[in-house]
Amino acid sequence: MQISLENLLEEVSGIETITNPAQVAKLSEDYAHFSPVLVPLLAGKVGDVVVRPSNESEVLRIAQTCVKYKIPLTVRGSGTGNYGQCTPMRGGIILETSRLQAIKWIKAGLACVEAGVKMVTLDKKAQEIGWESRMVPSTFRTATVGGFIAGGSGGIGSVLYGQLRDRGNLRAVRVVTLEDEPRIIELRGDDVQKVNHAYGTNGIITELEVPLATAYGWSEFVVSFTDFMTAARFGQALGNSDGIIKKLISVHAAPSSNYFTALQSYIPKDSHCALVLVAESDREPFLSLVKEFQGEVCYEKNAQEASKGLSLVEFSWNHTTLHARATDDSFTYLQSLFLNDPKLELVQRMHEYFGDEVIMHLEFIRVNGVVIPAAIQLVRFTTGDRLNEIIAYHESQGVFIANPHTYILEDGGMKTVDYAQLNFKRMVDPYGLMNPDKMKAWKS
Amino acid sequence: MQISLENLLEEVSGIETITNPAQVAKLSEDYAHFSPVLVPLLAGKVGDVVVRPSNESEVLRIAQTCVKYKIPLTVRGSGTGNYGQCTPMRGGIILETSRLQAIKWIKAGLACVEAGVKMVTLDKKAQEIGWESRMVPSTFRTATVGGFIAGGSGGIGSVLYGQLRDRGNLRAVRVVTLEDEPRIIELRGDDVQKVNHAYGTNGIITELEVPLATAYGWSEFVVSFTDFMTAARFGQALGNSDGIIKKLISVHAAPSSNYFTALQSYIPKDSHCALVLVAESDREPFLSLVKEFQGEVCYEKNAQEASKGLSLVEFSWNHTTLHARATDDSFTYLQSLFLNDPKLELVQRMHEYFGDEVIMHLEFIRVNGVVIPAAIQLVRFTTGDRLNEIIAYHESQGVFIANPHTYILEDGGMKTVDYAQLNFKRMVDPYGLMNPDKMKAWKS
Repeated sequence: MQISLENLLEEVSGIETITNPAQVAKLSEDYAHFSPVLVPLLAGKVGDVVVRPSNESEVLRIAQTCVKYKIPLTVRGSGTGNYGQCTPMRGGIILETSRLQAIKWIKAGLACVEAGVKMVTLDKKAQEIGWESRMVPSTFRTATVGGFIAGGSGGIGSVLYGQLRDRGNLRAVRVVTLEDEPRIIELRGDDVQKVNHAYGTNGIITELEVPLATAYGWSEFVVSFTDFMTAARFGQALGNSDGIIKKLISVHAAPSSNYFTALQSYIPKDSHCALVLVAESDREPFLSLVKEFQGEVCYEKNAQEASKGLSLVEFSWNHTTLHARATDDSFTYLQSLFLNDPKLELVQRMHEYFGDEVIMHLEFIRVNGVVIPAAIQLVRFTTGDRLNEIIAYHESQGVFIANPHTYILEDGGMKTVDYAQLNFKRMVDPYGLMNPDKMKAWKS
Repeated sequence: MQISLENLLEEVSGIETITNPAQVAKLSEDYAHFSPVLVPLLAGKVGDVVVRPSNESEVLRIAQTCVKYKIPLTVRGSGTGNYGQCTPMRGGIILETSRLQAIKWIKAGLACVEAGVKMVTLDKKAQEIGWESRMVPSTFRTATVGGFIAGGSGGIGSVLYGQLRDRGNLRAVRVVTLEDEPRIIELRGDDVQKVNHAYGTNGIITELEVPLATAYGWSEFVVSFTDFMTAARFGQALGNSDGIIKKLISVHAAPSSNYFTALQSYIPKDSHCALVLVAESDREPFLSLVKEFQGEVCYEKNAQEASKGLSLVEFSWNHTTLHARATDDSFTYLQSLFLNDPKLELVQRMHEYFGDEVIMHLEFIRVNGVVIPAAIQLVRFTTGDRLNEIIAYHESQGVFIANPHTYILEDGGMKTVDYAQLNFKRMVDPYGLMNPDKMKAWKS
């Protein structure tokens, strides 16, 4: 920074700030410690100060300050990401959105919220009028809407509504720019893709318009199976069952569920299981499907019971990894898509090839209208080289890997340069101050 | 009949009957006149008397009478079928369900109705509590729930929830048997498939439990395109757009829409067009998709406007054929599935091969989780031989044809004997009295 911290604080006076080094260090982190590859790369990467604006005009003042003094700025929601999305690689300001808490409006099918509104808060408000979020991350209790859009890809609900990148799943965003004269730009329609899943590298998202779905009461089930492939095929069959409405199909090879401590009294040890959210009124056909696959329902909560306390949502997606690591922190993970594997032959091949080293964990999602298994495999980490070998083998066999062991936007799921995002960054962040070093295509 | 009409009327005294020959003849027909092949086959096939029971115990009395005197019995809903499902091939009693009008109960996700409840009535009642039918036929204003289940396969909503045969889309049925001592049997779960789409050949359906979906406000759009294949690809792309919620995607090659008289002032003459129902809150992403395919919106109604008066639903599915025949009654039609044609190459080949003789009309539906085009092509009829040639050519190219030019259950969409249905008939209709000559596997 070409400005002293003292002067900086003066520039943003009236806006809440945090300078306590321990707190700032904490707020420079997310859950990247799931990756032993990322840990050393992100170690010591901390901001100089955290600011907590409470409205858009405060965001604008912060932006003006950053541009004036060429201070790097990294936006942070609740820090539930896993790739250091909110970790400032070059220090500077961390703009935390926790005080941007207004639900601007909410109506049939649509809501407009400030970036720091938590998913759970939006959902509760939406449910009051019979609606709910189309999809939420497993971290829904803490994750913010802005963070989910900027750093997430999909989650619970993706088996119905696809991914966040799909047209329709984000309607509008307001972003504050870091131009010489920072301003507010509203992007609507397909233009939202310019900043969707861009890690906050090209605009400070202050407000979002997101679609809702009509709300169902969701019953929760754990179904155990004697072998993994039956569990996997059950998951695919449920995904393909158009007459059964479901929000989550999360399938786990043993011994994953052994790490679900809070569920230990329900799930038989070493069993392969599926965690499922099904529309409450679809219980009967769901149980017929369970029977067809000779599954055993070992846990069941109706929608009302499921709405309080423990939720299976918090054992799915990357919460699976969280629970496994709570017992054994040598676990890390992969993110994969099995795009052309309707009979799950490739799933089976990977499952058998790696045995206990890579423990299969499928999350069924819709991709271009088709339900496919994504996988968030648990990996017993040994070395970075071995991890790369594992990734390379998957790719050689036709599994798409969205590498979670990189903080570089393009090296994760995207693979190629997104020119719409790059060009938008050229316009709104000419000095390359926003979340520096995250967008590879940007040469600062 | 081995009983005089007079004595028969005595047996069912207290139950409403119709004996006027003109009325009985009318109530012996459905919309099979769409098929010039069926017309001569069904000509003169009339019942002896129509009975209109007003409750299940009256149905039971009618059943007892039929068994006692070995009188054939054919069930009729509103007669909106197209394959003579309700036409009595051997005279006897026509049991019309129009007085079985009770909605027994309706709650979140489920409704229990008597067989004669109209789809539109159920939908209105469901909407009061925020729900709606998962799928309806284009004849929803007159069609009954029982008739739709016994004789239909899917419809508006099948692009979301699949077909009526899919597990979950029918929950329970009560049927009255024609055993020596007629009784009431309730079938639940997978057992409902014993009578699902069986044309009433193996039980008189008196009551049904059907699932509901959470209700959306549906906006209606007609989008015109300069060429058919762009319209078709738009339909498939919309079907695959998981972020856009839709209930109907009905795509018509020119000159089909020229026959939509009530829409003539909106749809440009000779254009290829898509009739679409989209969740009202998804208008914006829908219009982005329209733009991507360079379509022109030529008709738009929001959900409130669409809920009264004209609905595009009544130009889709087999209503298309109805409108074409209103102008030119030499039109007939086909029913097809393009099961493995994600790029619509087969659709294109058929479209180009037959030119104006077979006018393409696609209805996108979900089959085992995948959105595919079904087709209800308009066919310019010349001879039965030519019609068979057209069908054979489609089949030789890999198009699945559910032949609508037969009144035989197995010769339509089913193709093979359904042993569950046959065995159930053996039990509940030992004398083969129910809708005789419709189930080929039954040797009476």
